[in-house]
Amino acid sequence: MTYCVGMILDRGLVFMTDTRTNAGVDNISIFRKLFTWEQPGERFLVMATAGNLATTQAVVSMLDERNRTPAERNPSILEAPSMFQVARIAGRTLREVVRDSAGGSEAADPTFSATLMLGGQIAGMPPRLFMIYPEGNFVEASADTPFFQLGETKYGRPIILRTFDPAMSFEDAAKLLLVSFDSTIKANLSVGLPLDLQIYETDALKAGRALRIDQSDGYYQTISTGWGAALRQAFQSLPDFSFPAD
Amino acid sequence: MTYCVGMILDRGLVFMTDTRTNAGVDNISIFRKLFTWEQPGERFLVMATAGNLATTQAVVSMLDERNRTPAERNPSILEAPSMFQVARIAGRTLREVVRDSAGGSEAADPTFSATLMLGGQIAGMPPRLFMIYPEGNFVEASADTPFFQLGETKYGRPIILRTFDPAMSFEDAAKLLLVSFDSTIKANLSVGLPLDLQIYETDALKAGRALRIDQSDGYYQTISTGWGAALRQAFQSLPDFSFPAD
Repeated sequence: MTYCVGMILDRGLVFMTDTRTNAGVDNISIFRKLFTWEQPGERFLVMATAGNLATTQAVVSMLDERNRTPAERNPSILEAPSMFQVARIAGRTLREVVRDSAGGSEAADPTFSATLMLGGQIAGMPPRLFMIYPEGNFVEASADTPFFQLGETKYGRPIILRTFDPAMSFEDAAKLLLVSFDSTIKANLSVGLPLDLQIYETDALKAGRALRIDQSDGYYQTISTGWGAALRQAFQSLPDFSFPAD
Repeated sequence: MTYCVGMILDRGLVFMTDTRTNAGVDNISIFRKLFTWEQPGERFLVMATAGNLATTQAVVSMLDERNRTPAERNPSILEAPSMFQVARIAGRTLREVVRDSAGGSEAADPTFSATLMLGGQIAGMPPRLFMIYPEGNFVEASADTPFFQLGETKYGRPIILRTFDPAMSFEDAAKLLLVSFDSTIKANLSVGLPLDLQIYETDALKAGRALRIDQSDGYYQTISTGWGAALRQAFQSLPDFSFPAD
């Protein structure tokens, strides 16, 4: 499994992904699931991946190759005129890879399936955030739904639903994501450290702060142990239950 | 879907279930999923059900009929000599119903599948708590795993993992379950009010307090609105994140 979150804030984009991949619980590895592309001053793109690792690595390699080989540059995610077009290229590439792995079958075979989260900005246009399905189609985040989750989404969802605020700082967003990821990691073996964090500040048109957070990270440890105590205190702060009189 | 939790505390057993059943999101109903049987002074049994409603209603009816019709009293969950034997009867009944619905197929057909949580106590023996699978086999709660969840378990799990304490009072357990259920209800349409709560006090050998909690319940409203604020405060109480110096 996997856990990834992408958020669109007033200030820009925040992505966090875990790095655990598993084929059964006895075959666990660490692979990066967060990728970025940029043409400084013109565009910045960030992608998080979930699903079959062979599929997602192939998609990323194909998007990369198209950027690098002049003969194959069309269509390139670094040349597409809008984020919508970038999402279409990524979606078509994903669909091609899934189909190819399934021997050309039209339907998205669950074995080879994968899902992508794509964010970014192109000069002169606002930042956008998409969730791209294995069939190649996609949906876009909006003010009503300003964040997407991929993979093992449920454990970490309540804290995001209750705390997310589009006006929050990048630091608060990182803190919120660490709490959400820590709750997930504590409950589910298929999500694991280290975590990758990528910030994108609106109109920067280049990568913002990026960080890899592992078990030895002091702040992560503070959050991980502190959140349990903070939750218990929050629980105690609520009025006590009493049974109604008979 | 469904959400049910059964806990074994030092003081006894606590069960909470939601009441929403759905066949698609456009076909939602309210059905009780919490059932009790007792022979005051001799035994008390409580069962929570999840899965195909036709299956779980049939299982409960068959367990009931066997209690009521003398000719069919063997095997009866009110006469079995131990909780282990009660669990076997419930498991066999469940397996029979699932198989029968599937036209006699050996494998548990997912369409007709259901899972049960069974707790209770028989005079002279300690209270026990079991999770019974559609194949009729079961596992028992222990000091290492003192609670079971059924159905839509993930949203409400982190708060239980962080707050559960076997020494807690029934009132604190009810409060904890209301927080866990409220987080689930806020995140997932397939779990809904009202909620059923059943308490069993060790060695009482009769039903403890029982309560149905609906949207108009003042305490539930306090928890539902208060928990969001308490969570945000817990979040703010943690030290702030800052990016490491470049």
